[in-house]
Amino acid sequence: MADWQEIAGGITAPRGYRAAGITAGLKPSGLPDLALILSDVEAIAAGVFTTSQVKAACVDYCRQRLQAKHSARAILCNAGQANAATGTQGWFDALESAIAIAQALNIPSESVLLASTGVIGQRIKMDALKSGIPQLVTELSETGSDKAAQAIITTDLVTKSIALETTVGDRPVRIGGIAKGSGMIHPNMATMLAFITCDAAVSPALWQQMLSRAADRSFNSITVDGDTSTNDSLIALANGQSRTPAIIEMGLEAEKLEAMLTAVCQHLAKAIARDGEGATCLIEVQVTGTQDEPSARQIAKTIAGSSLVKSAIFGRDPNWGRIVAATGRAGVPFEQENLQIKLGDFLMLENGQPLPFDRVAASAYLKQTAANSSLPNNSQRVDNPVLIAVSVGNGQGAGKAWGCDLSYDYVRINAEYTT
Amino acid sequence: MADWQEIAGGITAPRGYRAAGITAGLKPSGLPDLALILSDVEAIAAGVFTTSQVKAACVDYCRQRLQAKHSARAILCNAGQANAATGTQGWFDALESAIAIAQALNIPSESVLLASTGVIGQRIKMDALKSGIPQLVTELSETGSDKAAQAIITTDLVTKSIALETTVGDRPVRIGGIAKGSGMIHPNMATMLAFITCDAAVSPALWQQMLSRAADRSFNSITVDGDTSTNDSLIALANGQSRTPAIIEMGLEAEKLEAMLTAVCQHLAKAIARDGEGATCLIEVQVTGTQDEPSARQIAKTIAGSSLVKSAIFGRDPNWGRIVAATGRAGVPFEQENLQIKLGDFLMLENGQPLPFDRVAASAYLKQTAANSSLPNNSQRVDNPVLIAVSVGNGQGAGKAWGCDLSYDYVRINAEYTT
Repeated sequence: MADWQEIAGGITAPRGYRAAGITAGLKPSGLPDLALILSDVEAIAAGVFTTSQVKAACVDYCRQRLQAKHSARAILCNAGQANAATGTQGWFDALESAIAIAQALNIPSESVLLASTGVIGQRIKMDALKSGIPQLVTELSETGSDKAAQAIITTDLVTKSIALETTVGDRPVRIGGIAKGSGMIHPNMATMLAFITCDAAVSPALWQQMLSRAADRSFNSITVDGDTSTNDSLIALANGQSRTPAIIEMGLEAEKLEAMLTAVCQHLAKAIARDGEGATCLIEVQVTGTQDEPSARQIAKTIAGSSLVKSAIFGRDPNWGRIVAATGRAGVPFEQENLQIKLGDFLMLENGQPLPFDRVAASAYLKQTAANSSLPNNSQRVDNPVLIAVSVGNGQGAGKAWGCDLSYDYVRINAEYTT
Repeated sequence: MADWQEIAGGITAPRGYRAAGITAGLKPSGLPDLALILSDVEAIAAGVFTTSQVKAACVDYCRQRLQAKHSARAILCNAGQANAATGTQGWFDALESAIAIAQALNIPSESVLLASTGVIGQRIKMDALKSGIPQLVTELSETGSDKAAQAIITTDLVTKSIALETTVGDRPVRIGGIAKGSGMIHPNMATMLAFITCDAAVSPALWQQMLSRAADRSFNSITVDGDTSTNDSLIALANGQSRTPAIIEMGLEAEKLEAMLTAVCQHLAKAIARDGEGATCLIEVQVTGTQDEPSARQIAKTIAGSSLVKSAIFGRDPNWGRIVAATGRAGVPFEQENLQIKLGDFLMLENGQPLPFDRVAASAYLKQTAANSSLPNNSQRVDNPVLIAVSVGNGQGAGKAWGCDLSYDYVRINAEYTT
């Protein structure tokens, strides 16, 4: 059905991009901690950033840059220190990072975007960052996506990466993406980050609109614990190196590109939710029958974020009463006699009234789905979520959200970090 | 400082009230499950109910009754079945319950209010309820508060009860209250319930206004997991049996009465938060410097409800970065260079920048506070919360919220209920 196919290569699958990831010594663990993405030419750039009142220096920096010009060539990302709540000095550190990488790449510092992830309140280890830059630039490669993906993660158990290909005007167009985020934010280890590369030619305004809508349908529709971070950033480049006709307004080609962009974002978002701290499975909530899409998403997110629903799924308990309660408190008006709830193929509530169902079989469904979604392969991990389907009426609105279950390990990881 | 003193007697401390609690056979456990509160005379009645789109039959019933007339004599409460998502039959069951108790008390059924708590989707066991009514009425007593408090709880570890006394026109006026709620809602065991009795004479409109404001500053400012239930109800009666001058408009006497009403509600609310499933301590968040009180409460609730903050407190980890993150995402605008954060007496962030602090001593503070708050006595349990104080600017707005920590037991209780 989809108008595209999955290909290898991540963010270096699209034409005209190189990437690198190295160990610069920012993380105490000695794991890779500095990543660079470079477009051969100045690329149209769009961004979506945290809505928190407390923003990391890199977020303020990117917003100012993208307000001044809608293009960039490089994204520099460090892991280990979030550079949030670091005051004026944190801002100078961000500027100095951008200038250092610009000089090494021989590009204007205006063409550099930044991202940080790590402990809130800690400045970037600038000596280590600056010392690492020569090696980082040397290692830039057209097959460097995996190394970059490894260098941006913190408490993530797996890297998150995807690339899709479609055709525009009979020529291939590709979008790649990498992301980090352990769903639940680890002790101060803030942040969901995602970087998207695309080789289509698209106008700046349209690219930003597409990205904002795709973010609403993906990263803004996942929830693990609701703790929006100070550093959340989604940055997307489009460099035109596919040599396909420029897309400057909505239409068939634009819709196709946006659908593929949304699919890339959704894959990465689901991978983040699945990797939530302590999670044993991915949960997908589908809501229909609302007046509009945002209302449906709001209900879906409330269900996916309910600690009661999440604990029940962890316990493989087909506890539909909790889904009813979460639906009811989502803040979206509906008539409760229209409410319908399905868990997998099991219809549990219809016309607002409970139905008899096979509790043992429903619990078995939960157990089997969880087993499927513990597969090591990233795509397989997100392909078999626990499905919750809710309908609240006859409206045309529909929306989805993703989350994960709530386990003992979630508490262990987050309570015992510094003890 | 307070203009009142704590007295014994709970909801039967105010003049002209009797109460009872019995085992009618609604709970499988055989514990008390049917409670009745009766005023000797028709009392002014006010209520605050769940904002969920899915409302239990008793909630619909009470809202209709209180819309038609602002007074009542009796409150009948059953525990075991929530009578929510039970369709038309659930509505008939509610009406039949009201009629049965009205006949037994020889009062109009219009003077009966109802509350239910228990499993969502289950009808009230009407045979057991109706069989229990004669004994329930027989056992009505001026010292019956404790028995009623026991009959309304479900997964609560302790009963919640309080009575305060002040003077109006040199005569004593009393307010008593009982509540149930395990903070976190147990598997379908919905609901926070609170019943307030008062012997002052107060006008219906003023009493409702006072109750709504008190609810905002107490029950609406606690959070354990955010899962608003289908049955949440707060009902307050004022029967005038203190024979004090009627309070019909705001003024000194009205302010005194409202302050005492708020104190009763806050005590019960804190007791509910402290009794959150698996909780080891109460957390109090004080926010100042906002433009208004609702903004301050919004930030306080976001912090008290953050799973990251809650897990850190469980781990006795003075992890201020998580408090920063929760403050930032609360949806209230502020300048991050004005942000100040204190944990107990430890100042951790000032002017938006981290300060050095004694981490070992701060962790010791958390450990000691938790030990205090595990005392068996109800008042002592809520008197030593973990204190988080946040200031976001120079505004006059201030507000508080209460929550509890997030422990392994929370997950155990909620995951393993039906398995």
